[in-house]
Amino acid sequence: MSIPESVQLGRNTVIEKDVVIGENVVVGHNTVILEGTHIGDDVTIGSNCVLGIKPGGSQRMRKSTEKKSQLVIESGTRMGHLVSIYSGTHISQNVFIGDQASIREKVAVGEESVIGRSAVVELNSTIGKACTIQTLAYITGDTTLEDHVFIGPCVSMSNDKYMGAKDYNLQGAYMKEGAKIGNNASILPGVNIGRDSIVGAGSVVTKDTDDYTVVVGVPAKEK
Amino acid sequence: MSIPESVQLGRNTVIEKDVVIGENVVVGHNTVILEGTHIGDDVTIGSNCVLGIKPGGSQRMRKSTEKKSQLVIESGTRMGHLVSIYSGTHISQNVFIGDQASIREKVAVGEESVIGRSAVVELNSTIGKACTIQTLAYITGDTTLEDHVFIGPCVSMSNDKYMGAKDYNLQGAYMKEGAKIGNNASILPGVNIGRDSIVGAGSVVTKDTDDYTVVVGVPAKEK
Amino acid sequence: MSIPESVQLGRNTVIEKDVVIGENVVVGHNTVILEGTHIGDDVTIGSNCVLGIKPGGSQRMRKSTEKKSQLVIESGTRMGHLVSIYSGTHISQNVFIGDQASIREKVAVGEESVIGRSAVVELNSTIGKACTIQTLAYITGDTTLEDHVFIGPCVSMSNDKYMGAKDYNLQGAYMKEGAKIGNNASILPGVNIGRDSIVGAGSVVTKDTDDYTVVVGVPAKEK
Repeated sequence: MSIPESVQLGRNTVIEKDVVIGENVVVGHNTVILEGTHIGDDVTIGSNCVLGIKPGGSQRMRKSTEKKSQLVIESGTRMGHLVSIYSGTHISQNVFIGDQASIREKVAVGEESVIGRSAVVELNSTIGKACTIQTLAYITGDTTLEDHVFIGPCVSMSNDKYMGAKDYNLQGAYMKEGAKIGNNASILPGVNIGRDSIVGAGSVVTKDTDDYTVVVGVPAKEK
Repeated sequence: MSIPESVQLGRNTVIEKDVVIGENVVVGHNTVILEGTHIGDDVTIGSNCVLGIKPGGSQRMRKSTEKKSQLVIESGTRMGHLVSIYSGTHISQNVFIGDQASIREKVAVGEESVIGRSAVVELNSTIGKACTIQTLAYITGDTTLEDHVFIGPCVSMSNDKYMGAKDYNLQGAYMKEGAKIGNNASILPGVNIGRDSIVGAGSVVTKDTDDYTVVVGVPAKEK
Repeated sequence: MSIPESVQLGRNTVIEKDVVIGENVVVGHNTVILEGTHIGDDVTIGSNCVLGIKPGGSQRMRKSTEKKSQLVIESGTRMGHLVSIYSGTHISQNVFIGDQASIREKVAVGEESVIGRSAVVELNSTIGKACTIQTLAYITGDTTLEDHVFIGPCVSMSNDKYMGAKDYNLQGAYMKEGAKIGNNASILPGVNIGRDSIVGAGSVVTKDTDDYTVVVGVPAKEK
């Protein structure tokens, strides 16, 4: 464990072994940083967070974890309170993560992106640079957002067409650069959203949308 | 208080009196287990959870609580981090409870069921065996799910037809065996969902659906 | 710091400097009360909460904070567990705040109102007296609710018409006295909801509604 003198640790923090913390990091009270987590310089972490969670939820499985499955948080990133993030995820520089957000394993979050408060990002998802995922939005597993994508509050996605009834290759959405999804829209499994396309608030998107289009309604149609 | 030697307690845990913990249980850091909670063998609990909360939210009311209103978590159940569960609730064997989920009092969760991350289950609800409640789904009070029901991500329910304006006997939904609800669907108070029926993503279900049917749209109609 | 003898503090609580706590207050385990927070008499606070968070998320910015930006919680208010509330917010008497709720800075919550579990209230919003905001509902920034407004579970709002694409004066909704919003409805930026008006569950409200009307559907129309 390597904690520089410039680090400001809150009270009752738990820092497990093999955690690496950079210069000028601030860690809030009661925050738990689990084994192997890497935190860059100038990162700010709130209180009561749990970082570096091993998938499977069992601390008994921890020993078999490979080195590459660490949680890495790059420099300049700031996060709020009561946040949970899994190991095997990579958070780039200058990301902002809101209070009570949750990010699973094998997720990559690009520079300058925002993960809103109480938002959830499921496993195997890729978030590009300068994306905005707003409050309470849900990014299902196996989703890809290119750069500058905007996900409004309470947007919902799913990746299982048969809802557990059949074997199915889970498919998240793919959203091209600059796509914008209005609040509380529902995105179905495997849907592609076109470049700079807009999905209206409350729409239900059941099929791919073209680049530079606007779709609205239930089911969503081009406007 | 009875804690076997095989139990692995995290740091800064708070275990109140009359808590019973089985063999080979793992409890994460900073987790609070309140008075009277019973935890079976081989249960795994994450960090920063609060378990056994007394309804009413006041610790001053605790002394009047009857014995039958304990939180019971049966063997083999695993839960994530930042979870809150009330007393008077019964979690059966081999249940999985995701991070940041919240379960109120007088709830029964059947064996092998999954309560997704950030999902909320309100009071007086019954969840059958092998049900799946996905991320950020909302199970209102007085809801019944039979076995093998699938609730997609961000599904919403309500149990108060008059939204607080009149005296009303609160009625949750009743979902028969194998029902499947698509992501972000809205289910109105007292609606019955038929056996093996499917509700499309983003639908608004205003009346009962028949067995073995598919309904979609706003309001939802048979397809 | 001033903590009367009648206060019941949980274990591992962190009370920062310049916190004022009234008589007969109960604070749960592992709860963090940050610098300058004022808590009235007979307030009950659950475990693992974080109260008085400074906007910006950085503890390094704390010193420049003005006195008027304290979190004030008035007497008789009760809150659950894992709650986060920012400084610069005023919670009136006898408010109830559910588990895992989150309230940002510069929010005013009127007497006897309820903020449901896992609900999120964004900055600069005003909640009147005796309002009910149900579970997982989302109150966007710059929203005003007059008195006796009812927000159903999972209701969604947004305040940015152009979703980050243009400079825009962010506009939340304005809801007049007694308005009732059904579960999972979507409210667009700047919409006014009329006095005692009702919005059906799952509706998408794109324009103002008149007083004493009922609107339903996507987009919502008068019934």
